Parts: sequence; C-alpha cells; structure tokens
Amino acid sequence: MSPRPLVVDTDPGIDDAFALALAVGSPEVDLRAVTTVFGNVSLEATTGNARRVLALCGRHDVPVAAGADRPLVRPQPHRSTHVHGDDGLGGQSRSLPVPHNEIDPRRAVEVLADVLRRAEEPVTIAPIGPLTNIALLLACHPELKPRIDRLVVMGGGLETGNITAVAEFNIWSDPEAARRVLVEEDVPVVLVPVDLTHRCAVDPEWLDALAASGPVGAGLTSLTAPYRANYRQALGRDVMVLHDAVALAEAIQPGILRCQRMSVEVECGTGPTRGMVVGDRRRQSVNRVGREIEVAVDADLDALRAFLLERLARGR
Amino acid sequence: MSPRPLVVDTDPGIDDAFALALAVGSPEVDLRAVTTVFGNVSLEATTGNARRVLALCGRHDVPVAAGADRPLVRPQPHRSTHVHGDDGLGGQSRSLPVPHNEIDPRRAVEVLADVLRRAEEPVTIAPIGPLTNIALLLACHPELKPRIDRLVVMGGGLETGNITAVAEFNIWSDPEAARRVLVEEDVPVVLVPVDLTHRCAVDPEWLDALAASGPVGAGLTSLTAPYRANYRQALGRDVMVLHDAVALAEAIQPGILRCQRMSVEVECGTGPTRGMVVGDRRRQSVNRVGREIEVAVDADLDALRAFLLERLARGR
Amino acid sequence: MSPRPLVVDTDPGIDDAFALALAVGSPEVDLRAVTTVFGNVSLEATTGNARRVLALCGRHDVPVAAGADRPLVRPQPHRSTHVHGDDGLGGQSRSLPVPHNEIDPRRAVEVLADVLRRAEEPVTIAPIGPLTNIALLLACHPELKPRIDRLVVMGGGLETGNITAVAEFNIWSDPEAARRVLVEEDVPVVLVPVDLTHRCAVDPEWLDALAASGPVGAGLTSLTAPYRANYRQALGRDVMVLHDAVALAEAIQPGILRCQRMSVEVECGTGPTRGMVVGDRRRQSVNRVGREIEVAVDADLDALRAFLLERLARGR
Amino acid sequence: MSPRPLVVDTDPGIDDAFALALAVGSPEVDLRAVTTVFGNVSLEATTGNARRVLALCGRHDVPVAAGADRPLVRPQPHRSTHVHGDDGLGGQSRSLPVPHNEIDPRRAVEVLADVLRRAEEPVTIAPIGPLTNIALLLACHPELKPRIDRLVVMGGGLETGNITAVAEFNIWSDPEAARRVLVEEDVPVVLVPVDLTHRCAVDPEWLDALAASGPVGAGLTSLTAPYRANYRQALGRDVMVLHDAVALAEAIQPGILRCQRMSVEVECGTGPTRGMVVGDRRRQSVNRVGREIEVAVDADLDALRAFLLERLARGR
Repeated sequence: MSPRPLVVDTDPGIDDAFALALAVGSPEVDLRAVTTVFGNVSLEATTGNARRVLALCGRHDVPVAAGADRPLVRPQPHRSTHVHGDDGLGGQSRSLPVPHNEIDPRRAVEVLADVLRRAEEPVTIAPIGPLTNIALLLACHPELKPRIDRLVVMGGGLETGNITAVAEFNIWSDPEAARRVLVEEDVPVVLVPVDLTHRCAVDPEWLDALAASGPVGAGLTSLTAPYRANYRQALGRDVMVLHDAVALAEAIQPGILRCQRMSVEVECGTGPTRGMVVGDRRRQSVNRVGREIEVAVDADLDALRAFLLERLARGR
Repeated sequence: MSPRPLVVDTDPGIDDAFALALAVGSPEVDLRAVTTVFGNVSLEATTGNARRVLALCGRHDVPVAAGADRPLVRPQPHRSTHVHGDDGLGGQSRSLPVPHNEIDPRRAVEVLADVLRRAEEPVTIAPIGPLTNIALLLACHPELKPRIDRLVVMGGGLETGNITAVAEFNIWSDPEAARRVLVEEDVPVVLVPVDLTHRCAVDPEWLDALAASGPVGAGLTSLTAPYRANYRQALGRDVMVLHDAVALAEAIQPGILRCQRMSVEVECGTGPTRGMVVGDRRRQSVNRVGREIEVAVDADLDALRAFLLERLARGR
Repeated sequence: MSPRPLVVDTDPGIDDAFALALAVGSPEVDLRAVTTVFGNVSLEATTGNARRVLALCGRHDVPVAAGADRPLVRPQPHRSTHVHGDDGLGGQSRSLPVPHNEIDPRRAVEVLADVLRRAEEPVTIAPIGPLTNIALLLACHPELKPRIDRLVVMGGGLETGNITAVAEFNIWSDPEAARRVLVEEDVPVVLVPVDLTHRCAVDPEWLDALAASGPVGAGLTSLTAPYRANYRQALGRDVMVLHDAVALAEAIQPGILRCQRMSVEVECGTGPTRGMVVGDRRRQSVNRVGREIEVAVDADLDALRAFLLERLARGR
Repeated sequence: MSPRPLVVDTDPGIDDAFALALAVGSPEVDLRAVTTVFGNVSLEATTGNARRVLALCGRHDVPVAAGADRPLVRPQPHRSTHVHGDDGLGGQSRSLPVPHNEIDPRRAVEVLADVLRRAEEPVTIAPIGPLTNIALLLACHPELKPRIDRLVVMGGGLETGNITAVAEFNIWSDPEAARRVLVEEDVPVVLVPVDLTHRCAVDPEWLDALAASGPVGAGLTSLTAPYRANYRQALGRDVMVLHDAVALAEAIQPGILRCQRMSVEVECGTGPTRGMVVGDRRRQSVNRVGREIEVAVDADLDALRAFLLERLARGR
C-alpha cells in the first residue's frame, strides 16, 4: 500500500516540532506540504520554525508555505510565548539547521488547494494550530471538500482549558475559524482535545530515551527545557504534553485514538467562555446544538507513547 | 446551641420538596421563611407547591412569600416540566395537604429583608432555584449584606450541564442574576454544582426506605415516579438525583460537603454557553477571571445519603 | 384639579439639578419623594447632591432615599465626571445649602413602593439616571405596576449617542436594567432621547435670564461653567443641553413633547453597540423586535425653553 | 489616460444589475472581472444573474467567477427575495440573454488575486454584496493589499437600516467579513451607506427615460416592477433606490460622492444590532473605537442621477 497523502498545517511551537518529525518519520504517510499559520508565535516565526524542524529531519524538499498572519475576524489576544518561548522553540530555533531551499512563493491556501487537486486520493490534513488556514481553504474552495479525506485537528478541551478555564489555545486563537470548520462544514473531522493529550503526557524517562535515539531525537529534546518547566508548574508533576504529536499519531494510524461521536459547538461570543469547544456528552438531547464529529477520548496510552518514541527515533 | 436561622429560596420542583422537608426535619436550623421564585414551573405553581410541601411536613406556620415571576433581563427559554411534570411535582401536587394559612402578603425581597433585620445572628440563605430573588435582595439592600452568614446555592456544573451541554438549569434560567450574586457581590457563597449532586444520587433501596419511614417520606416518594424515569434516561441507571437536598445538607451541617476555593464566572452571552458557570480549576492563572468562592466538590457519599434519609424520615 | 403625584429617580448631575428644581417649581405635580442612583457620580455623591439641590429650592421636606450603588449585572465602565465634574455638580456642590433633615433611612425601592401604595391615584415616575432602581422596583413589586401612571424616562439616542457613538449615558450605564424596563415590562413609557434634548439646548441669553431670575436660578447657573464648556466642545457652539429637565417638562405637562410610537430594543451585548436603544422607525416590519413605547421626537422648542425658564425662575 | 482596472464583486440583485451595466458603460474603467457571492439570493442564482446582465450589455468576454456560497462564520438568516424576487431579478432573469461563454472555472478569490497580480496599476474593487469574498482575499493574500487602489463598498447605514432597524442587508449578511474588511485591515475604503443611497433615489420620470434609452435601459427597466413596489411601501413614495449603482458611480468617478472621514466599527454580536456599521460622527472622542475610513455622506444629487442615466443609456 502506498503512503497516504498528508498536509500538516502548523504554528511551531515545540509540540508542533515533534508532530512534524513524527510525520516525516512515518512511512504510512507522504508529507506533501507544510502550511503555516500565526499562533504560538507570529507567522514569520512559525514559518521559519517549520522550515528548520524539517531541515533537522533532513527534509529540505517538503514545500513550506505561509498562510494567515492573524485570525479571521478579531485580533488574537496574545501569543503563547509563556509556554513556547519568544521564538516558539524554547529559545533554541537558531540552533537548528538552516534549510537548503527557499520558502514556497505561494500562500498556504493556494498550496493546500494545489495538493488537493493533484493528489491521487483524498488527502488527510492535520491542522495543529489555529484553524484559520483551513477555514479559508473551505470558504474559498468548496469544490475541493470531496478531496479531503479527513481533518485531524488538535484543539479544544471538554472538561478543561489551557489558555482560559475552558478554552484551549488553538481554538481560542481563532474561534470564528474553528466554528466554520468544526460546525458549519460537513468535512469529516477528528478532534483531539487537551483532555486526552494531557493523559498522553510523556515522562523524563521517555525524554531521555528520545534524546539518546539519534540526532533528530536529540535535536527535538534540546528544545524542551522551558516547555517542560511550564508543564511541571501547570500540571504539578514532571511530565511534558505533546498535544500535536498525539493528533499526528491519529493522522498517521487512523484508529490509534479511540473516538466518540458527539455534537460540538464553538463559543464565538466575547465573554469568559470565548473559544470554548462545547462537546455535548449528555444522553439527553434537550437544547443540543452544533454538529456531530468524532472526538478522541481515549487510547492505549503506553502503546501510544511507544509509537511516538519509535517514530521520532527513526527520524526521517 | 440554639438553631441557626435559615431561609430557603425555592422553585419546587421535586428535589426542592425534599430540600424543604430536610430543612424542616433538621434541629440545627430554624426555618424563618420560604421565598419562592419562577423556575421549574411558574411562580404561581412554585408558590403553591412550597406551601403544600410545608403542609405535608406539618409546618403551616412558616411564612411563604412569592418573589420574582421572571428573570432579571431576558425571558427564561422554557420551564423544566420535562423533568418535574406540568405542575412541578410530578403531577401529584393536588394530592398533598392543603395549607391552613394564607400566603404571606409581602413579596419575597421584603420578607428576606425583614428576616435579615430581625435575626439575632447572620442568616443562612439557601437559594435552590434561579438566583433572581437573591440578586434583587442584594441590589435593593446592600446595607443588609453583613446580615447574611452565607449563601448555599444549588447551581452550576463544572464538567457537565443538565439543561444544555454546559449549563445547569437554575443558573441558565437567570444567568444575569447568577452573575450578580456569584461574581459581583462579596457575600460568602458555597456553590453546590451538579457534578457533585449527580454523585450523591440515591438508589431504589434508599427510596424504598424513605417510602417506609412515615407519612412525610411516603408523601415525598409519591411525587417521584416521572422524575426517576427522567434520571434513568438521563444517567442510564436507576438512580435519582436530589440536587437541592444536597445543598440543604450543607446549609444545615456546614462542612458536610468538601469545598474547594476557586474563581468562578457566569457566561451571560446569548451563545451556546449561556448560563454556564465557569470554574477555574487550573493551577495556572493566565486569563483567570471572576470571583473566588467555595465550590462543593466531594463528600462522604454514604454518610451523606444516610444523613438525608434519617432527616427526611424524621419528617418534622 | 389637585397636583398629580410624582417621584423623580435621579443621579445629579447638573441637568438633574435643573430637573429637580423644575419639579419643585411646578404646581401641576406633587413631588412625593426623590430616589437616587449611581450614575454621573457615585451613589453617595448623587444622594448628597439631590438633597442639596432640594435645599437650594427650599424643600427640606421631600424624602430622599438612596437606591442602587451599581448596575444590575456588570460594572459601569466609568462615571461622567468629564461632563459633570468630580462631585457631579461642576465642583460647586459644597456651595449649595445644607439640608435641614436627614436622609430617609429606607432604600429607594422601599420608598417607591410606599409612595405607589399610598398614592390616591397612579403615580408618575421620572427616571432621569440609569434605570436600575426602576428595574428593581418592577422586579420586586410586579403587584404595584398598575399604580404607575407612566415612566417618563430620559435616555437613549436614536441617531446619535453621547457616551459612545450610539449609546446615551443613562442607558449605557445599566443596559440590562434598561432592557427590563423598556422592553420586558408593560408599564407605559415615554422615552426622551438625546436627539430631542440636543435640539432643546439653551443659549447664553437663556442662561443669563435664569441667573437674574432669583436665588434658585442663580444657584443653578453657578453650577454650569464646566458643563457649558463641555457642550461647547461637544456640539461646536455655545449652548447647553438640559436633558433631564426636558424629560421633566413632559412629566409635568403631558403632551408638551410630541411623541411617536415605535418598537424599541436595548442592546445588552458587550460589543461596540452596548447600551444602544434601537428605535425602529422603518415603515417595514421585517426583523422588527422589541416593545412599542412612546418616544419623544419633537416639541415647540421656543415654547419649551420659555416654559423651563418660567418654572425654574419660580424656584419653589 | 487609459481606463483604470476595476473588479465588481456582486450578488445580483436588481440594483447590482444597474451597477454592472454602469461599469460596462463607463469608459473611465476597464472591467477586468466580475466575482459573485451569495447574498440577495443563492450563489448559483447570483452567478447566473451576473452573467446574464453582462450578456444584456453585450459583454460576453468579462470573466465571471463564483465565490463564497455562505458567510464566514454564521449562517445568513434569510435572503432578500422579498425585495429582489425569488430569482434575484424580479422574476425576469430568464428573459435576459444567454451568455455565449462559460463561467470561469476558477473561484472568485483566485480570479481577484490574478487580476491584482497582472494589473499594471492598483485595482479598484467595488464590493456591492456581502463582503465575504473580499475578507477571504485579504486573509489569503495579505501580500496583494498594495495592489488594491481602494475598495468602494456599498453597505451600512449610519442613521437607519434596511433589513433591521439599524443594519443594512450586505453587512448584516456577513458581519464578520465586514469587520475584517472595514476594521481589521488597512486597505483604503470608501463606504457608501443607505443613508446616502436613499437620498439618491430615482423617480418614475427617470425610469421612463431609461426605458426609452435603448435595449440595455429597456432590459434593466423590465426587471424593476416588484422592486419599485417594495420601495413604494418601504419609503412611502414612488421612488426606487439604486444602492449599488451609486457606489459604482464613485468607483468610476472618484469624488462624485462627498466623503467624510470617520471611525467605523461593525457589531458582530448576536443581539438586535447585529450587522450594524457604527459610524462615530461625534466631535468628542470618548469611547471611540474602530478604524477611520471614508464614508460617503453627500452628492450633487441631480448631477448624480443624470450621470447614472447617461451611462446606463450608453449601455456598452
């Protein structure tokens, strides 16, 4: 079986870097392009980071195209530099290799459309940053929706948030785009929320093994010092959460996460719940709203961590 | 030690009926008045129900005063007749005894103010319906706030809702009043959310024991057939949730519920999260909003159920 | 014909001071009480100002009762000290006479309810500040609504705002209360918006005549220096707007303003139109919302100014 | 001087048809493309209508490309068939000529980007429907903003609305897109609101003259029967409003409308003012929000009507 076509839409970010390396290291998928979006840091920084992470993995050939530099409708209140550092890679972006090739001269939506049009089969898209580029793609190119196999989205939190009490950073960064993608469209979606990614956190032993696995593993590990410190403080124990890599695992091996079908809505008001993904898990349907999608709720956690380690160690 | 003064503000409602009986049957408190509010059913019906439940408990002397007939600002979208029946008491309100005395001619806020002014010590108020009367009391009589010992509020849901995916019925019925009481005031509050009340659900054996305990227990049990059926469907097992009685237990025996201090906000927008109580349980404080109150998060569940049974069996 | 009973609910404020003097100087009405509300300045200041203005008019006997110290649901973003001065009376409040009597020990809603209950005929209420006290009155005492003849409300702006591009200060200070009163209730309302009050502005000659008319006129004029300067800047010519006095003219002589019946709504969202009174003047009814009330749209402007001058000169 | 490049983005619509004919009949501009958007009727219908109107004008060569089929974030509540008829052209769309050429296979944003890239000078864009395509263009192609001369937008109403009390149809149909274009971007904008277009209404004599002017004039006039009836009812006199043609006049002859620079915001909440363009015309800046753009506020009305008639009569 030939590898399935994949595009990763991303705002690296440390866990995004792990996700990119995972995509590169997995024979099940063929990474056709990487598109970038503002988010953890500015578009300029996320684009540079994506290119350097691919260079670390030895993949100077994957097209990288810049997309949205801001949300659809309202400004992003703030970046995520308190988690990912001012440069988005824990202050270490300059230590990564320099890419051999130029950035793709086209914009993200053009590249996404082009990949969809050319692919021999429907394409998996893994949006692991704010959903702005994906909302733009669907709004500009409704004719290409049948060319999308599914969107494996890292975002949301059913019982907790990470940037507010109830909102997760990616969705909160552009709730209007998220609503367009998750609720208003009919493209198949798997949503991977922080409730699950937190449970998939990796521990110091896992990180030590990764660091010892080779140059890619060592390079990734070198980015993580402040990120680990943040999670130590946020979660109260020495673990590190690889949100985006968990979503990529599902994009690479469909079914590695256990999903539940539920109605979701996105709060686009400007009050305290702005950017919340409302997942309706009630048995009763009174006042049910939104669209039914798949939400990842569980996994064989040890197997998942082993899968991540094995693929990241492989490197390229 | 003399019993502590208590007012219950209520919209019976079947679990409200249990809560009133619990207040009457508990020597720790002196029920100075019952004030009523629209909510599960109309104000007229909740007022009649409160009086009949007190009559069932043999307490024709407790003043009952009618309060708000609607929310502060926006109409209540719908009643809770799908849970409590058209009359609010499972269709059985007419089977309860007729009160001997008239309804208090004063309005709820006047009675609440009068109780607060006359009481020899600060008064516990247990609002177990929409918070409209309490918001009005605090807004009309800021000078009486020091006369309130604490508000033990049944409402909200941190991880789930019961009337929408994320909102609990009492708060959702008047989010603006809830915001005034929970967030804008500085009166001490204990919030008893559905997350906990669901865990305190009682089973058929408990209900059988109550039915056999005497006329009050039998009378209360006679109201519950459709209410039990609703929970069987909502929760997928044959249990019944006594939301308001759990809150009253805390009002009667402070500390019977284990509380956690956290920041809460109330969503007053008109989107899918309207009426949600946002409780911020994160260790990190980024984008924290609202006011810190006590939220009931746990209890010795078996002891609590035994307490409820013993007091309800006592009857008066 | 005996004078009609009147209560003024107010947050003085310079034009409020003129309005109070107008009520006192008009034989058509019997000022039964003055209730105060936060607004232009704090409740403490508005209450003191109301008492001193009544003292200036020689009316130490009118009960003055303090009401709401804040809006129903959300904090007022800021006072109106840029218009009325830090003390609400252009820095001159201390120059007014000291009242002989104490403040009424009851709260505003109690006094309003008491006046309504005792009056031999339905009472006119002139709310010329934020509508908080009136919303509380209607919410606490639905049984007294038939005792209200009408509410003559100063507030709103159909084509312009004064505190934002589209909102007028009184409504903006508590939009939720305004929505309750204007839209959710069925009490008769005449709304006097800034569109009209701006057209009723008085000029320097009018003010000179008032200053020369006697001690009350001189006292009122002495408050106006910074207020006049504000309007010179806001309107681009040397006139002064007596918003609240225009509303009182209608309360005193029903019909002195020409009214038009239209549907109004109040925007309670938190966006750029918060606090706007939407008056629907279209001939078509597509997407019409809200409640039909009377809105003052015109007057014989010269006659109105003459009326104001004659009554204010009379003084008491 | 060579004609300036122009793209019209439109949702015909009867006044859109007049606007297209005006563009075609004006030598000052070179109509490089027409892009279509949902709005008055469905995207399929507006696209067909645009092509047939161009065919009526003998212009089978202008590329027509379909764009957005729905708003960015929330569904459009309803079409404008009550004004423009079920087919968008007063029931007469089938009576117009059949276009010789195919629809452009590319989507609207691709065509807009292509025109901008190829044009020898910055391009005027005249968006006369919902602003969805334009928001998408700016979001997908920030690099092309310097290639836009200005956006001449028909939309908004400062003192009145036409689809709600305060909102105009185009903006109300996609307020989020409008906010992106009018407030969040820095591209030069002239906004032509209904306040002005209503004042530019044409009377029966004007329409008679147009009908007699030739085949294009006759064809356009044949569409207007129900549209005229709507305005007779809405405005209370027998005039017809050519909203979009007024905007095109400014796109063709910059300065034909007198503009005023003011701050504008767009209300994106879900309450009664949704879709309102807030234009701040106050002299004072307290609570000023939004972005400063040019708003058309006046014109030599007779000259403008004569201009419209002369160009529409010219036809092609």
